[in-house]
Amino acid sequence: MRDHFESRDTDAAGRIGELTVPRAGVTVETPALLPVINPNLQTISPARLQEEFGAEILITNSYIIHNNEDLRERAREEGLHDLLDFDGAIMTDSGSFQLSEYGEIDVRTDEILRFQHEIGSDIGTPVDIPTPPDVSRERAESELATTQERIEAAESIDTGEMLVTAPVQGSTYPDLREQAGAHADATGHDVFPIGAVVPLMNEYRYGDMVDVVAGAKRGLGIDAPVHLFGAGHPMMFALAVAMGCDLFDSAAYALYARDDRYLTVRGTEHLDELDYLPCSCPVCIEHTPADLRSLDDQAREEALAAHNLHVTFAEIRRIKQAIRSGNLLELVEERARSHPAMLDGYRALCDHTDQLEREDPASKSTFFYLSHESARRPEVRRHHRRLDRLDPEGTVLLTEGDSSNNYDESWRIVPPFGPFPRALSETYPLTAEVPDRLDVSAYEAAADGVTRVVESNPDTEFVLGHWDWPASALDRVPDRVDSFVLGEK
Amino acid sequence: MRDHFESRDTDAAGRIGELTVPRAGVTVETPALLPVINPNLQTISPARLQEEFGAEILITNSYIIHNNEDLRERAREEGLHDLLDFDGAIMTDSGSFQLSEYGEIDVRTDEILRFQHEIGSDIGTPVDIPTPPDVSRERAESELATTQERIEAAESIDTGEMLVTAPVQGSTYPDLREQAGAHADATGHDVFPIGAVVPLMNEYRYGDMVDVVAGAKRGLGIDAPVHLFGAGHPMMFALAVAMGCDLFDSAAYALYARDDRYLTVRGTEHLDELDYLPCSCPVCIEHTPADLRSLDDQAREEALAAHNLHVTFAEIRRIKQAIRSGNLLELVEERARSHPAMLDGYRALCDHTDQLEREDPASKSTFFYLSHESARRPEVRRHHRRLDRLDPEGTVLLTEGDSSNNYDESWRIVPPFGPFPRALSETYPLTAEVPDRLDVSAYEAAADGVTRVVESNPDTEFVLGHWDWPASALDRVPDRVDSFVLGEK
Repeated sequence: MRDHFESRDTDAAGRIGELTVPRAGVTVETPALLPVINPNLQTISPARLQEEFGAEILITNSYIIHNNEDLRERAREEGLHDLLDFDGAIMTDSGSFQLSEYGEIDVRTDEILRFQHEIGSDIGTPVDIPTPPDVSRERAESELATTQERIEAAESIDTGEMLVTAPVQGSTYPDLREQAGAHADATGHDVFPIGAVVPLMNEYRYGDMVDVVAGAKRGLGIDAPVHLFGAGHPMMFALAVAMGCDLFDSAAYALYARDDRYLTVRGTEHLDELDYLPCSCPVCIEHTPADLRSLDDQAREEALAAHNLHVTFAEIRRIKQAIRSGNLLELVEERARSHPAMLDGYRALCDHTDQLEREDPASKSTFFYLSHESARRPEVRRHHRRLDRLDPEGTVLLTEGDSSNNYDESWRIVPPFGPFPRALSETYPLTAEVPDRLDVSAYEAAADGVTRVVESNPDTEFVLGHWDWPASALDRVPDRVDSFVLGEK
Repeated sequence: MRDHFESRDTDAAGRIGELTVPRAGVTVETPALLPVINPNLQTISPARLQEEFGAEILITNSYIIHNNEDLRERAREEGLHDLLDFDGAIMTDSGSFQLSEYGEIDVRTDEILRFQHEIGSDIGTPVDIPTPPDVSRERAESELATTQERIEAAESIDTGEMLVTAPVQGSTYPDLREQAGAHADATGHDVFPIGAVVPLMNEYRYGDMVDVVAGAKRGLGIDAPVHLFGAGHPMMFALAVAMGCDLFDSAAYALYARDDRYLTVRGTEHLDELDYLPCSCPVCIEHTPADLRSLDDQAREEALAAHNLHVTFAEIRRIKQAIRSGNLLELVEERARSHPAMLDGYRALCDHTDQLEREDPASKSTFFYLSHESARRPEVRRHHRRLDRLDPEGTVLLTEGDSSNNYDESWRIVPPFGPFPRALSETYPLTAEVPDRLDVSAYEAAADGVTRVVESNPDTEFVLGHWDWPASALDRVPDRVDSFVLGEK
């Protein structure tokens, strides 16, 4: 375990962790949101972020400070914490974003990293190359090699107690992301931003985002704190946390406010199109949409930024509570219905079920079956895997009905999990709550469980008693299983 | 159209309406939440409900007032509005709830209705019989007959400008609910509570609740304002509104607070089990869970009641905004993932798609495909029905790919809708957003669309070009359709 990051509670690949930031003398609880502070333009002051919104950590851009003579001198003299009037942790970016936006910047990694250290940053960043999605593999590999050289070079720079990040690039090539993750993890660096995902999020490519994160996570150790760099929309936090991301940064709260855009956990609304404020935050309690529209530009921007932050921080708390309660995937299920692209993201997460299953706790709160996708959750996969360990003998009844003495053993069978010995009935996840109107995916998953136990016990005979399963489920059961409809035999 | 209720915007069977309450001199916008005021015990004062939470209408119990000498005399002297210090609309219940809880009450309909009028109630209620779920049909019919007699008797009582309700009973027999709805609608009464659904909601039987509401709605006219009596949990408001309910009443906000229970749109939490407050309301911004736990009983109850109300009223605003934006069913999709029982409710709603389709607007905002259930939405059903009106001739290509000159006509085909002439491409709902990872339900619904157009055009030949649909979808297409996989021909 890295000594500056400790994971406390887990759910899927998500966790509540503690990131110790020695230079700031604080411990930041993750998942955490880092509001982005533009040193030239503060919509909401850092002091207010700390007091009113509970921000424990901020991020600002050392490149902007470095390139502005006045800011640079003040930062050198006063230090970053006094400059921003914030005594929590401050992370600094290096200018990579400017590199991706404008194509070139005029500082080197050693120079900007020393500058970050000099002005008192708590977490500094080298100048990586944010390779966009969908570039040629050749370009992705070549730029990744440069990023990796710079990360390695950063190791030899004396940065004292400042934590240093090792960004993970690799464009939309999951195997490059994995390789980049493994390389970054092997350095002496401390925090691991997954870079250049902003274009994916701007285009609502949440499925691709999940694949990229999954790749990076396979390379990174489980003890690596992961920053989904540039991800600031609360709609996708739960999904990203479930994939194993710990840190987010939001410029969105301020940028969107400037453009009269109003964040919700279900998407983005434009103030002009709102007849009601669908939120319970103090801003939305005290105003109507007409009130907000009638404010002058600055007051409106500030009010919308405050709303955006309230929604964003509330979602972080909701996610933490979900991890504590063991129902993070239930929250992801809900957020998956915000937008078809979010459903894509959740379905992509389900494609990585085996990867998630390795970190998912063995016991959580009651499993809720909430959609066809629920049949693909890690808990179902794990139950199927565990069936391999059981050795039923003789002739075994697998039944949705009562047990019977006519068989050597009489197991229960519960969609979506499949069969299990009755003694396990009260164990997680078999205490699941399922809807009365169950779907074909649940029956098919249960049938796959039957197949699993049948195939791993070739000398045992199986009989399946079911309440009239759909044909597509029964078709998945091996032919050698004798099945009958309960109530008809 | 009833002259005291006007529907303004609609989505599915939900609507934003205006309920004119002449005696109060106010117009209440629906969907509306009526906080329940216990005249003996006000957790949050009516004045505060109005000012801080925007409550336009309350409900209180005339039976409790009638049976308490002090309250009765004060209500007679001061009138209900002064007694409660509230100048919005006040609805009064008759004691039916006490009847259902304690088995008998000692007032008659004429007596209690006159009393409600006398003390200045704006909406009065006769003493109906709240028949519980699952009783014998005989009992349900007999009690319904009594309820209907009382509703009829109430017509002859002089209640001046006071609106009078006609409760719809019928237990869990949808056809009795329908008959009760039709009977109530034919009276001269004004507001239509669907009664005795509290036991269903207490047991999380949202599927049954939807069936009961659907039955009542089939009997009631589209212009009847419908009150889902006793429904106060914000988790199910969107579902109930989509089924056509306009009014809700919440005692939950106060009762739950008394028991340290914390409402969210995703369910109910107990304060003792919260490590974070998953909400952005003023109470949750200003407190931690530990802060709340350390308050004395009264302050804690008041804080939790305020939180519960903030969440509840915010959900009402969210629903109204969803109706305005034309994405109420998208909100229902999301709420359906709060609990397996809510998924049951949504799947029950999908069972009533034809009924919803009759009221659903022809054009809304972009259709979002958010789950397998989306394939069963009214918009898909309507598209299939509309296909009957089209008369393609000759040999027609239905294709997911480009059009072709080798056919007499070349239509597009888009899951979950199915085929349509290219000229309709930019019309609702065919502009739908769907996930890249589409599911089998979408393909099957599209195949059903193919079947529909093929069967209604027996003299036309059809060729289907698709991107490798799953077998279960292709199996639904009539044999006479020649189909091929795009890119393979």
